[in-house]
Amino acid sequence: MELIETLLMTPGPVHLDSETMLAGAATLLHHRTSDFSPIYSECLELLKKFIGVKNNLFLTTSSGTGAMETAIANLFNEGETILNVQTGVFGVRFTKICQAFNLKTVELKCEDGKAVRVEQIAEALKQHPEITGVTITFNETSTGVCNDIEAVGNYLKDKNVYLVVDGVSGLGALPYNHDKWNVDATVTASQKGFLAPPGVGMVALSDRAWEKAQKVKVHGFYFDLKEYKRNQDLAVPAYPWTPAINVMYSLLVALRKIDKIGLDNCINHYHRLAEGFRAGLKALGIKVFTEEKALSNVLTVFYVPEGINPKEIIKEMVERYGIRIAGGQEQFSNTLLRVTTIGNIAERDIISTLGIFEMMLKEKGALKEVGEGVKAAMNYFLNN
Amino acid sequence: MELIETLLMTPGPVHLDSETMLAGAATLLHHRTSDFSPIYSECLELLKKFIGVKNNLFLTTSSGTGAMETAIANLFNEGETILNVQTGVFGVRFTKICQAFNLKTVELKCEDGKAVRVEQIAEALKQHPEITGVTITFNETSTGVCNDIEAVGNYLKDKNVYLVVDGVSGLGALPYNHDKWNVDATVTASQKGFLAPPGVGMVALSDRAWEKAQKVKVHGFYFDLKEYKRNQDLAVPAYPWTPAINVMYSLLVALRKIDKIGLDNCINHYHRLAEGFRAGLKALGIKVFTEEKALSNVLTVFYVPEGINPKEIIKEMVERYGIRIAGGQEQFSNTLLRVTTIGNIAERDIISTLGIFEMMLKEKGALKEVGEGVKAAMNYFLNN
Repeated sequence: MELIETLLMTPGPVHLDSETMLAGAATLLHHRTSDFSPIYSECLELLKKFIGVKNNLFLTTSSGTGAMETAIANLFNEGETILNVQTGVFGVRFTKICQAFNLKTVELKCEDGKAVRVEQIAEALKQHPEITGVTITFNETSTGVCNDIEAVGNYLKDKNVYLVVDGVSGLGALPYNHDKWNVDATVTASQKGFLAPPGVGMVALSDRAWEKAQKVKVHGFYFDLKEYKRNQDLAVPAYPWTPAINVMYSLLVALRKIDKIGLDNCINHYHRLAEGFRAGLKALGIKVFTEEKALSNVLTVFYVPEGINPKEIIKEMVERYGIRIAGGQEQFSNTLLRVTTIGNIAERDIISTLGIFEMMLKEKGALKEVGEGVKAAMNYFLNN
Repeated sequence: MELIETLLMTPGPVHLDSETMLAGAATLLHHRTSDFSPIYSECLELLKKFIGVKNNLFLTTSSGTGAMETAIANLFNEGETILNVQTGVFGVRFTKICQAFNLKTVELKCEDGKAVRVEQIAEALKQHPEITGVTITFNETSTGVCNDIEAVGNYLKDKNVYLVVDGVSGLGALPYNHDKWNVDATVTASQKGFLAPPGVGMVALSDRAWEKAQKVKVHGFYFDLKEYKRNQDLAVPAYPWTPAINVMYSLLVALRKIDKIGLDNCINHYHRLAEGFRAGLKALGIKVFTEEKALSNVLTVFYVPEGINPKEIIKEMVERYGIRIAGGQEQFSNTLLRVTTIGNIAERDIISTLGIFEMMLKEKGALKEVGEGVKAAMNYFLNN
């Protein structure tokens, strides 16, 4: 429908409001000036608070993948062995990055839709005592799996093993605390729970990680955090290179809004939306891919009824009704759908997404009668 | 919910997309130049096509009320007698304007929620042969009543009585043809069916109306169309005074979009939304205020269940769920609600508005079980 704008129910970029987007339309400021520096510094302060890191936070001009690369490049010397917990596509991505930096990798492939158990990590460390780092995805956007970072951090804290967490889709959307949870590197980005456009990566480091980073010879130039630190410590704090200036304008507006509402309130809101959406799916007899205890606020990954092509559903939902949802990634592209419940969205968007989804199923003969999904979501919202 | 933007389901201003709004953020051009003039001229051409007027169309820098005043001020001399068909607040507004211009008025008050019948007009003309003009509302935003302008125009066409139509909320949303329907003056504005922000009024005149206007002494200066005509005929067509320049930028983007989609397709889309919404209300046992044959695409006016305060519904729907609907006007403010089905909106917005409305009713004890309204709307959309 050309008359309307598309509602993004995709797990990143998420749907943003015009206040945030319009902030990015302001005239550019030069980035090495006292005009721009307060914007940069305030973003850093608010992000430190939301990530739960007291000392070391760096912003990269990159996507989340760039932030992942930054953590690996700065924390590990060539030849070190890294355990990569894989609960989906983004867990595998850490393996690829590690290998590109000539690190040795041990891959811990978890069962489909299941979170890693600490015992699995313990077992891998026992079998590979040479492991010096563990990478793990907080919330896997490809499978909906949310891993228990607190438990993993607690297990690793007294070991000489550095914990690197991909928090790209989880930060801002789920409770998290880098320092308290004994994480060494948390990487995230602007376009998911922090409700801003893409373009800014974030890397938080523990003190011991920062200390180790001093002794790492970074292969590469752009992501060398020593240069970031030197620029951050200038009288007028700056980036080493040119930042995504207007993305930072939007990011600051979004972070201030989150701060005003309260991060906990945002997280609770997303929880409500996610549970409401899943109540709808349940009423429709739709099977969720992710195991119950690994479910999160960020997104729900679910099977389409047999005989239905998820790609057709996606195409028709956006072309006919202006709602963009996502499909399964890689081997799941013909069986799964993914719908986010974070962003500048609310109950109304869950109701309409479920409603249009039901209409699609009805048309394709996979549903006898429409209405049960939205009804269940509405009842969830009324009762919670 | 501070996290989200408000969805406008109000009958004007209607919900607009950011493409239209952002067009209005461009740098100002000077209005008496060949830079701006093509924008003005293209708006005029597209509007002539959509209103169905070949020769005389003028744009005012005003709201719809300013356009109403323009028609009255230019068409009638002091002392003439005008019949004001009243099917709601905006019908009465014409009486007030006529009286402010020292015209004599005959008021034809129609029954609540009912359209005027041609016989009623014939009877009034018979009783008051001195009547030289008839004012009528095409689509009454206060009551949802849509009057049959074609029938009235057909009846009046051979009489020496000038027909003035308030088309503010109907144009762009319902089939209409100024010339074919023998209307003498059609007034409308930018913020409803033409999908632009408020600020531009529109006045279309028949040839005989324009001829009569030459002989009218306009009381006032700002709305004297003779000055508009003189400026429109300049080598570089212009407004007589300063136009709402950036509203015109948005208006042009919106009109081009309507033209690309096709005005008929827009009208059919709104019809579908209106019927879907009313199918939902019917399933909920909600009584519509407007008589069946006077219903339109523009909005639906309906009673709240007994014991429910519509003002509370409106307040909670917007504050808790980000959906803005409207209440009844004047004597109906404690009994009626009004929901539009035009604007940059679609099926998803009808489903979510009905869903949230049902949740409100359930919470207030006026509904046993949620879900029947959205279900009926979804089924309507599936079957139509």
